[in-house]
Amino acid sequence: MHSTTQHTLTADLQTEYRTIRQFTQQLCQPLSPEDCTIQSMPDVSPTRWHLAHTTWFFETFLLSRQSDYRAFDPHYEYLFNSYYHTVGKQFPRPQRGLLSRPGLDAIWEYRRDVDQKMAKLLASDNAADQEVRRIVQLGLQHEQQHQELILTDIKHVLSCNPLFPAYHAATTQAVATAVATDWLDFDEGLYEIGHAGDDFAFDNEGPRHRVFLESFQLAHHPVTIGQYREFIDDGGYQRPELWLSLGWQTVCDHRWQAPLYWTDRDDRWQQFTLCGLSDLRDEDPVCHVSYFEADAFARWAGARLPTEAEWEVAAADLPIEGNFADRLVLRGAAIQPGAPTTTDQALQRLFGDVWEWTASPYTPYPGYQAPQGAWGEYNGKFMCNQYVLRGGSCATSQTHIRPTYRNFFPPEARWQFSGVRLAR
Amino acid sequence: MHSTTQHTLTADLQTEYRTIRQFTQQLCQPLSPEDCTIQSMPDVSPTRWHLAHTTWFFETFLLSRQSDYRAFDPHYEYLFNSYYHTVGKQFPRPQRGLLSRPGLDAIWEYRRDVDQKMAKLLASDNAADQEVRRIVQLGLQHEQQHQELILTDIKHVLSCNPLFPAYHAATTQAVATAVATDWLDFDEGLYEIGHAGDDFAFDNEGPRHRVFLESFQLAHHPVTIGQYREFIDDGGYQRPELWLSLGWQTVCDHRWQAPLYWTDRDDRWQQFTLCGLSDLRDEDPVCHVSYFEADAFARWAGARLPTEAEWEVAAADLPIEGNFADRLVLRGAAIQPGAPTTTDQALQRLFGDVWEWTASPYTPYPGYQAPQGAWGEYNGKFMCNQYVLRGGSCATSQTHIRPTYRNFFPPEARWQFSGVRLAR
Amino acid sequence: MHSTTQHTLTADLQTEYRTIRQFTQQLCQPLSPEDCTIQSMPDVSPTRWHLAHTTWFFETFLLSRQSDYRAFDPHYEYLFNSYYHTVGKQFPRPQRGLLSRPGLDAIWEYRRDVDQKMAKLLASDNAADQEVRRIVQLGLQHEQQHQELILTDIKHVLSCNPLFPAYHAATTQAVATAVATDWLDFDEGLYEIGHAGDDFAFDNEGPRHRVFLESFQLAHHPVTIGQYREFIDDGGYQRPELWLSLGWQTVCDHRWQAPLYWTDRDDRWQQFTLCGLSDLRDEDPVCHVSYFEADAFARWAGARLPTEAEWEVAAADLPIEGNFADRLVLRGAAIQPGAPTTTDQALQRLFGDVWEWTASPYTPYPGYQAPQGAWGEYNGKFMCNQYVLRGGSCATSQTHIRPTYRNFFPPEARWQFSGVRLAR
Amino acid sequence: MHSTTQHTLTADLQTEYRTIRQFTQQLCQPLSPEDCTIQSMPDVSPTRWHLAHTTWFFETFLLSRQSDYRAFDPHYEYLFNSYYHTVGKQFPRPQRGLLSRPGLDAIWEYRRDVDQKMAKLLASDNAADQEVRRIVQLGLQHEQQHQELILTDIKHVLSCNPLFPAYHAATTQAVATAVATDWLDFDEGLYEIGHAGDDFAFDNEGPRHRVFLESFQLAHHPVTIGQYREFIDDGGYQRPELWLSLGWQTVCDHRWQAPLYWTDRDDRWQQFTLCGLSDLRDEDPVCHVSYFEADAFARWAGARLPTEAEWEVAAADLPIEGNFADRLVLRGAAIQPGAPTTTDQALQRLFGDVWEWTASPYTPYPGYQAPQGAWGEYNGKFMCNQYVLRGGSCATSQTHIRPTYRNFFPPEARWQFSGVRLAR
Repeated sequence: MHSTTQHTLTADLQTEYRTIRQFTQQLCQPLSPEDCTIQSMPDVSPTRWHLAHTTWFFETFLLSRQSDYRAFDPHYEYLFNSYYHTVGKQFPRPQRGLLSRPGLDAIWEYRRDVDQKMAKLLASDNAADQEVRRIVQLGLQHEQQHQELILTDIKHVLSCNPLFPAYHAATTQAVATAVATDWLDFDEGLYEIGHAGDDFAFDNEGPRHRVFLESFQLAHHPVTIGQYREFIDDGGYQRPELWLSLGWQTVCDHRWQAPLYWTDRDDRWQQFTLCGLSDLRDEDPVCHVSYFEADAFARWAGARLPTEAEWEVAAADLPIEGNFADRLVLRGAAIQPGAPTTTDQALQRLFGDVWEWTASPYTPYPGYQAPQGAWGEYNGKFMCNQYVLRGGSCATSQTHIRPTYRNFFPPEARWQFSGVRLAR
Repeated sequence: MHSTTQHTLTADLQTEYRTIRQFTQQLCQPLSPEDCTIQSMPDVSPTRWHLAHTTWFFETFLLSRQSDYRAFDPHYEYLFNSYYHTVGKQFPRPQRGLLSRPGLDAIWEYRRDVDQKMAKLLASDNAADQEVRRIVQLGLQHEQQHQELILTDIKHVLSCNPLFPAYHAATTQAVATAVATDWLDFDEGLYEIGHAGDDFAFDNEGPRHRVFLESFQLAHHPVTIGQYREFIDDGGYQRPELWLSLGWQTVCDHRWQAPLYWTDRDDRWQQFTLCGLSDLRDEDPVCHVSYFEADAFARWAGARLPTEAEWEVAAADLPIEGNFADRLVLRGAAIQPGAPTTTDQALQRLFGDVWEWTASPYTPYPGYQAPQGAWGEYNGKFMCNQYVLRGGSCATSQTHIRPTYRNFFPPEARWQFSGVRLAR
Repeated sequence: MHSTTQHTLTADLQTEYRTIRQFTQQLCQPLSPEDCTIQSMPDVSPTRWHLAHTTWFFETFLLSRQSDYRAFDPHYEYLFNSYYHTVGKQFPRPQRGLLSRPGLDAIWEYRRDVDQKMAKLLASDNAADQEVRRIVQLGLQHEQQHQELILTDIKHVLSCNPLFPAYHAATTQAVATAVATDWLDFDEGLYEIGHAGDDFAFDNEGPRHRVFLESFQLAHHPVTIGQYREFIDDGGYQRPELWLSLGWQTVCDHRWQAPLYWTDRDDRWQQFTLCGLSDLRDEDPVCHVSYFEADAFARWAGARLPTEAEWEVAAADLPIEGNFADRLVLRGAAIQPGAPTTTDQALQRLFGDVWEWTASPYTPYPGYQAPQGAWGEYNGKFMCNQYVLRGGSCATSQTHIRPTYRNFFPPEARWQFSGVRLAR
Repeated sequence: MHSTTQHTLTADLQTEYRTIRQFTQQLCQPLSPEDCTIQSMPDVSPTRWHLAHTTWFFETFLLSRQSDYRAFDPHYEYLFNSYYHTVGKQFPRPQRGLLSRPGLDAIWEYRRDVDQKMAKLLASDNAADQEVRRIVQLGLQHEQQHQELILTDIKHVLSCNPLFPAYHAATTQAVATAVATDWLDFDEGLYEIGHAGDDFAFDNEGPRHRVFLESFQLAHHPVTIGQYREFIDDGGYQRPELWLSLGWQTVCDHRWQAPLYWTDRDDRWQQFTLCGLSDLRDEDPVCHVSYFEADAFARWAGARLPTEAEWEVAAADLPIEGNFADRLVLRGAAIQPGAPTTTDQALQRLFGDVWEWTASPYTPYPGYQAPQGAWGEYNGKFMCNQYVLRGGSCATSQTHIRPTYRNFFPPEARWQFSGVRLAR
């Protein structure tokens, strides 16, 4: 960032803003007002809420700090605050599906209004300010996180409907090629992980620090549907000895028999996808499994999940290529793991396709300090009873991911595009 | 019905069908697709569901019995069946709010399609058939019940929104005149109650039968907001001795302090209405109280609730006039209890304004037999842990109500337009 | 009570007091301190609590009103108050099983202490006071109600133990004789029901009042296990059309397949009894069914349940004989429905054996006024969402029951000794 | 263990067995059969169950493997299995409080029977077998863990009683001396932690492995009640910014205002102890706090919790001295944190007094393999959503603890004797 002129920097940020905000709009194009209203479980938010909340972010943290700013609607500060105590009270998360107003049209208008004001800001002298630029970038990363949630959440909403409506039309997909489980070796040693430097990264990705790792191996490929079916056929969901105690309790309570969205119809497995119901393809990476399932599968396979340090060491120098949402949409392909890849490196699909559960609970890195104020609420306060996932998925944008990127979810979560890579 | 010609009968039914179905449409006019999607609690159904279910009723019980009938959409039989085991499986009631498809437009199309087919049926020779005519009438009464639910349910949906959106614009209402509690006397004796004759009535309104009543008195007016505030101010919600044991538990569990939709803002009571938030008017009938509250109020007032037999004896010969939804809409008035009345009889507002809780658990009349098949599921199976309400409300159509009409809700229900009339 | 002298009256009451209090002690003889500590569901109370609460009753309402009274332990007023808001706060009912102190020994000491003081009171001049006598009688009736609860509750406690421990040893029972369903006719007419006169009765049994009844028939016998098995074998628990809607929901939620305490072992039904597990005997009255099951059985049998007025009219002039707890214990027989009877009247087992569910919701009789103060909390406040049962059971004392006696439980309750008699 | 003769080894184990088993008996001496029956929350087990389960352990894993063994009672295998799927089905944990039989006497008899058979085994040639000796040691460690649970669980049971009964009589305690927060420094470096060698340790304490630590400081003393009161007085429980998101939710849901067992009476804090209610003493270590509270306190204090590696490095070479249950009982002192200590090292009370929450989620060490069979269920399957605690407490036996010992509980658990030591 040091060698470019001020003007180019500003123009770049304007372009980035427009591109990312428009991609949100593109993702909502297939959805009706009714689709955008429903909250199918407490973890899911209505699409309308995502559209408003990401806009609220720019309004709250940038526009409203201008001296002469008049809120688009003063109620929105409360309605669309997700979890920032620093900003004020929040409308209760599990009740987001109870709000029919403001309607979808009103929210699009809200977005247009904020986008105009943001365009003005980004064209002004203020755009040269470091702090402003940093918050804009944070807002855009935040928007990309919610783009992914729009996809994961609407998939869950539509899956509750016995009509199995499709989000977008099925495209013919070239079948992924069959894979064998090969292993790549890594030596023991004192490594460094975590983010350093001036490029954007979330606070939880740093500080960069030393970790000692024993030698380990990482599988070339994520676990496939075919491999996972062997686990199921071998009684995987009926054998307590394969599971963590809490995992086994979850399996029994919810009567899990297979990954989320798999359904047994006419005596064969099918899965609900964003293209509606479809047959399973053994070569595709298995998706929508919880940490519990990932862990049990690994135990069954005589392996384990990688730690996040192992994963990051392996990923550090690889190109960030793979099946990402923005790439797939551009190609008119279905947003679904398993599109063919062309990378010829040993570690296939490390980026994109499916988020990979690691064995690491989500904790602060040594020396981590949550930022003061609202930013401190972004990541740090969630460091409890969650596990780290790495690498992004087919619902993530390619421009959003980094080798140091730490995603996190509770071990029972399955509605994300989450899969498994083995280590040992 | 005996003296009219066949042709007139048929024409009348066609008109009635059109009028009632159009009124449903009129009631939905102020609602957005988002409004029509939300289920704010298990008792509430989304407007879209009401629109489809009432249409399903005609399709299932009339159209689909024609030999050559092709379903509008074969999934609808399952999706829009409320509780008829005889017809088949039902989509779970508490999950009606999870369905975004079919969308509102598709459901309007469904209604138009069924209406055209019904018009054809009603113009055909089949319309002379007694059984056909009876089911059409049942379907229209059913539609009117759901019109009322559309209003009560959307009121609940909108009330969950901190923006307090209005269903329709506030109109200036002439204030109801102040009332004194006077009593009308009735003698002891063996009375007859229940429906008899050929006019339409639900199965639960018969058979007509004898009951012995001690002498009793009935209040001239329903309990007003002003009277109810005295109860509140006298610690009504803090004194267990005034309440049924189950009622007191409900008060404590839900921390009830006032009727549903009352809210304490800036140190004065306001209530949410279909016109948004508004001040209380002491002269209006109190509304949205549970049986528990009605019973506790009566005990506090040194009186009791009337039995349904007492109520019916009192109502038997009175004209069915009052503030009803169809009348109010015609006059452009707000759907809210309390519009002025002109009847000069002793018992004011017996019909319309608010449903009146009676002291009678909802039980079968002596000799009652539930009809065979699906009709038997309409009323009989709900005769447990519910109380009878009488007289209709401002959300009921005038053409829907009868002196023998038995409405019923559990004692904790408050989202209906339910009020209190005292007896002793 | 009019012709006896004061002295005899007093002596009688002393004897009655001793007899009834000692019977409580006798009922607890087979129980260990551990047995007496457990609360197996919120409806159940630990035996220790029953022992203390019945004693608390005499202390609170008689002894503590003496000017110089010193409480046995001042904490007991709070600990052992069941539901009398008038007396003060109550230790929460569902937490009675959390108290290990005062221990069983301490509670026996409490009983002895209160018994001594009561003996003194009953031997004093105060015993001539009408109000004192009335409260003593109430306290003894209350004690008898809790004797029955000691039996029903400990049955539930022991049934939770996979060892199926017996409360008392099995005795050989002569088998009840087979029964045919015959019907006894009653004419229509204006009848009088309810308690009148000076003998003891609860407030809810009056006032005596007129009811008009259509002609009806009552079955000679309660429904037997054999008859109930036909209902089960005919798919009774799988056919929604036989059930009230709330009943069907309960069946599905709890997966009911048979009466409480029946268990399918080694491919045949057995039932848990106070003598442990035992085979079913077809001739015995079916027991431990809910109102929902009683009602569904009646519908399946083409009959209905009697109203409480019908039941009382039929029972009014019959001798109060049958299988009661005090009789069975005296004979060393098991406390279980089905011992042979010798009455030669048409209506068999109307009293004793099993409580008979009626079709009548538990409501106040016309003109009923709950007494002022604590007595008003005994019965009146429970008149909601419960059904009346009549006639007493094998767990009731013969000296406790009357034709006008109204027992009441919610429609889903099954842990009482409750059965079915048909009407039509 | 290498230099002693076979005979001494065996004699030592016999003594150890007797000593530890008798200590269990000693701990139960103040408890009545009623006390031993109650399960006050799902995490708590009745004392009777602990007595039986620890005995079951020796019977199942040692005695029953002898060819001619006859079970004391064949039902016990099921009743007293805690969570070993490998052994067979388990009686549901939350229902342990529903069992009144076998009674306390029967369970003492069970213990005596097993103890006699164990004495015979330990005196036989079999006692020389490595595997046998290892399981005996495991069983004794297991017994010591349940001794601690007997204390923590009965404290919870008794605390539910509004009479606040004492487990044992209060002894006069010399007051702990005031402490200042000083810090001890540790250098960065590659350290080794985890168990190695032949002495007994649980599988989760190994393998010994290298970890890289940044330099850090550890507080000389555990956080005191006085310090914790400052946190409370400074609004600690009202300020979301101090808490993990899940912690704040827990505070709000349960309305936490102070550590467990603190109660606000007559306007001053008191705490329930095993000696009944008592005043707070500012110098004592704060106890019965959750991980959430420990973490929030640390944030408020501008510090953090130590990782388990940091804690172990600090503890590695210190003598295992402190206030432990076996020591306190021997001295007739109350089982309560805070008795004076005499150690003159910098790190005070590192062992004993209170378990110290670490910042480390409970995860497997690198290279950890759960043992095959039942032993694999002892520790490994619980490695999810729990945090490690170190050092033992006043309810732990001194002979039970090691520097490598890893205790673990969920972050919301408070009924253990758990406290806080700061790091930074």
